Amino acid sequence: MVFTDYLWFNTKHQQEFVRITDDVARIVAASGVIEGKVLVSAMHITAGVYVNDWEDGLIHDFQVWLEKLAPSGLSYEHHQTGEDNADAHLKRTIMGHQVIVPITAGKLDLGPWEQIFYAEFDGQRKKRVIVKVLGA
Amino acid sequence: MVFTDYLWFNTKHQQEFVRITDDVARIVAASGVIEGKVLVSAMHITAGVYVNDWEDGLIHDFQVWLEKLAPSGLSYEHHQTGEDNADAHLKRTIMGHQVIVPITAGKLDLGPWEQIFYAEFDGQRKKRVIVKVLGA
Amino acid sequence: MVFTDYLWFNTKHQQEFVRITDDVARIVAASGVIEGKVLVSAMHITAGVYVNDWEDGLIHDFQVWLEKLAPSGLSYEHHQTGEDNADAHLKRTIMGHQVIVPITAGKLDLGPWEQIFYAEFDGQRKKRVIVKVLGA
Repeated sequence: MVFTDYLWFNTKHQQEFVRITDDVARIVAASGVIEGKVLVSAMHITAGVYVNDWEDGLIHDFQVWLEKLAPSGLSYEHHQTGEDNADAHLKRTIMGHQVIVPITAGKLDLGPWEQIFYAEFDGQRKKRVIVKVLGA
Repeated sequence: MVFTDYLWFNTKHQQEFVRITDDVARIVAASGVIEGKVLVSAMHITAGVYVNDWEDGLIHDFQVWLEKLAPSGLSYEHHQTGEDNADAHLKRTIMGHQVIVPITAGKLDLGPWEQIFYAEFDGQRKKRVIVKVLGA
Repeated sequence: MVFTDYLWFNTKHQQEFVRITDDVARIVAASGVIEGKVLVSAMHITAGVYVNDWEDGLIHDFQVWLEKLAPSGLSYEHHQTGEDNADAHLKRTIMGHQVIVPITAGKLDLGPWEQIFYAEFDGQRKKRVIVKVLGA
């Protein structure tokens, strides 16, 4: 059994982390899959999808840390194309662009603190995440 | 066909890398799946699962490198909640928290040097990894 | 339905990024899978597989950035085994070693700028990527 849906984002800020656990759970429920896996994958190359803690302080730490590892404002080669978002490509690479969440007994089989996040690094435009459920 | 099992860890040290290739292979054999994939995913957000070399020097290099990229002992915002492990969240993000291993002809279809590891960054407590086999 | 194929690489240079979107699409077409997922995973531990932009400037930026985060030429412990490629293990860890690409209506369900790349960090030798299709 395969079931596909898409989540749309258009964030207010250039950088924004959005919790999407409930959206993914809703799609899994609609799929009717009882045992399987769901792929949650950013379809744009300056955004990521990751699993971690739902705690504002930690989200702030992630953002400060990413800015240190992959600074904005450097003279990246990519910017010679007219773009100015090379750092967004690098930041999303650190965070990862997709996760697979196991489905057991009809529910997301997540640990106690696991939450799914969409990480936008070049927002204020329409972007999509694919949610693809596969199982029995 | 879907088959689910869990591996439990309670490491002696705060940080510890544990080879789990044989544990995953044992679960795949028990599943009866001949062609498919197995998801191996940390269920706690300060641990990772990755594939790389089984060589103690390299494991040491990984640990030194992670400490450089995501230092412990900084005054992270997350620590205002009473936690002291923000760096563990960052380190596991670099290493990745899950892998998918292909199963071909009933066996893990791994390259010559590929080994599956559990990377603990905040141990000395009970933690779980889900191993979910999907295939035919 | 499960279908497996392998891509072989033997790059001219030690470090080389190779676009493989069309190779993966060809294998998916051969598989006959209409709805499902394809795993694309490096079978060697000094190479990665990632999804990002097909733009030479950005590829250059990735390479400069990886050299900064995971420098070659340091005295890594791993080198006491006679190897000299510890940095290649670290670089591939940043980029990731595998991706899952969704298949919808018989095609790779990729966003407008998503391209699949093989990232070689220790080339000039024969290496393999597994491409495993699962679906209906």
